[in-house]
Amino acid sequence: MPADGPLRIGSLLYEGVDQIDLTGPFEVLSRLPGATVRLYGVGSGPVRDDNGLRLLPDATLEDAPALDVLHVPGGSGQERLMEDGRVLGWLRRQAEGAARVFSVCTGALLLGAAGLLEGRRATTYWAVHHLLPLYGAVPVDARVVADGRFLFAAGVTSGLDAALRLAAELRGEAVAQRIQLEIAYAPEPPFQSGRPDLAPPEVLAAATAGMAERTARRSAAAERWAAARRPPR
Amino acid sequence: MPADGPLRIGSLLYEGVDQIDLTGPFEVLSRLPGATVRLYGVGSGPVRDDNGLRLLPDATLEDAPALDVLHVPGGSGQERLMEDGRVLGWLRRQAEGAARVFSVCTGALLLGAAGLLEGRRATTYWAVHHLLPLYGAVPVDARVVADGRFLFAAGVTSGLDAALRLAAELRGEAVAQRIQLEIAYAPEPPFQSGRPDLAPPEVLAAATAGMAERTARRSAAAERWAAARRPPR
Repeated sequence: MPADGPLRIGSLLYEGVDQIDLTGPFEVLSRLPGATVRLYGVGSGPVRDDNGLRLLPDATLEDAPALDVLHVPGGSGQERLMEDGRVLGWLRRQAEGAARVFSVCTGALLLGAAGLLEGRRATTYWAVHHLLPLYGAVPVDARVVADGRFLFAAGVTSGLDAALRLAAELRGEAVAQRIQLEIAYAPEPPFQSGRPDLAPPEVLAAATAGMAERTARRSAAAERWAAARRPPR
Repeated sequence: MPADGPLRIGSLLYEGVDQIDLTGPFEVLSRLPGATVRLYGVGSGPVRDDNGLRLLPDATLEDAPALDVLHVPGGSGQERLMEDGRVLGWLRRQAEGAARVFSVCTGALLLGAAGLLEGRRATTYWAVHHLLPLYGAVPVDARVVADGRFLFAAGVTSGLDAALRLAAELRGEAVAQRIQLEIAYAPEPPFQSGRPDLAPPEVLAAATAGMAERTARRSAAAERWAAARRPPR
């Protein structure tokens, strides 16, 4: 990766993305000197995120140039793309030539469905972390995991931490630190509840119960994927 | 504020908003039970944020109901609204009846221009923090500052911290902690550079120089505002 020169960064945009998986890294990466960050939509129209925020793509998948950085956010809409050959093929083709492939949250499951996790150290959202081995990945219990050209942010807001790390790799630490200062990223969470091992047990139980159906669907998709890959006896 | 029941949250959306001032709080507040978060645009079409992200408003200012929570994000586009009577009048009217008025970053300067900071303890983005007294505010050097119904987040990503605090005030700590777990907000910044007193001196110098023109324009606007309010001799 050159220390300067143009840098084409592209984010996958789809209905039901969790917007901060996308907008957190956007805030950091769009400030990199020479970088353009574009949103490539599964469709050409506006999408609603998981909670209703409306975002517009800059272009559709087929309009994307060969990307230097492929950014794959997660969100409940990821489920509908897990067997979408067009999207998975696009991810495979872009990942092949990209200098960096960067997933946030359940974006890692999309990379898994595209066959891109086999043999890789990876992380994903805490509620589905146990599914990584079904995609052939080596699960690592960390907020940010790097494996060669691949970078994985565990969940939702972790995209900010990973994007700053990526910024330093792409343009140097001083640039990343300047961006951190510009975006005033000196977090002061008012509670200690951002990880399953930190959250009060009743809070963890409520969150887990609230997403049980979604987790079950994601498990079933991972099982199907793994079964289809298993060598016939 | 009732512990449940509908909660109408509205964010001001304008060209040149810094998107994470808006999307950070959106991620938290849209998960509150009973809450709807809507983006009210200065115009009815899509806007580009400071760095090019395209967002769509749900409605225009005039379509907004009386809000329970008025959320005012910052960004370079704030400058163009500092003498916009329609927007400032809307902020004043909404602030009058709202249970909470919540600014992020230079959104506080918009509240200042609307005359809403006089006598209030407040904070804003580090590069313009010294302008708060021109709007009659008592500047407080903190990431999140509360004064009665008003809540101020200092800069950009601080909207996440403030929104979690607001979530706890509106719906209780257990709900806020659950949201924090859902969005995996256990930050691990790779550098310590998110505040002027933490950043390496050369990083602070570069960031300050990079925004010097913008800071000068913001200072001039604040001076004009203060001069217009000064009693004639």
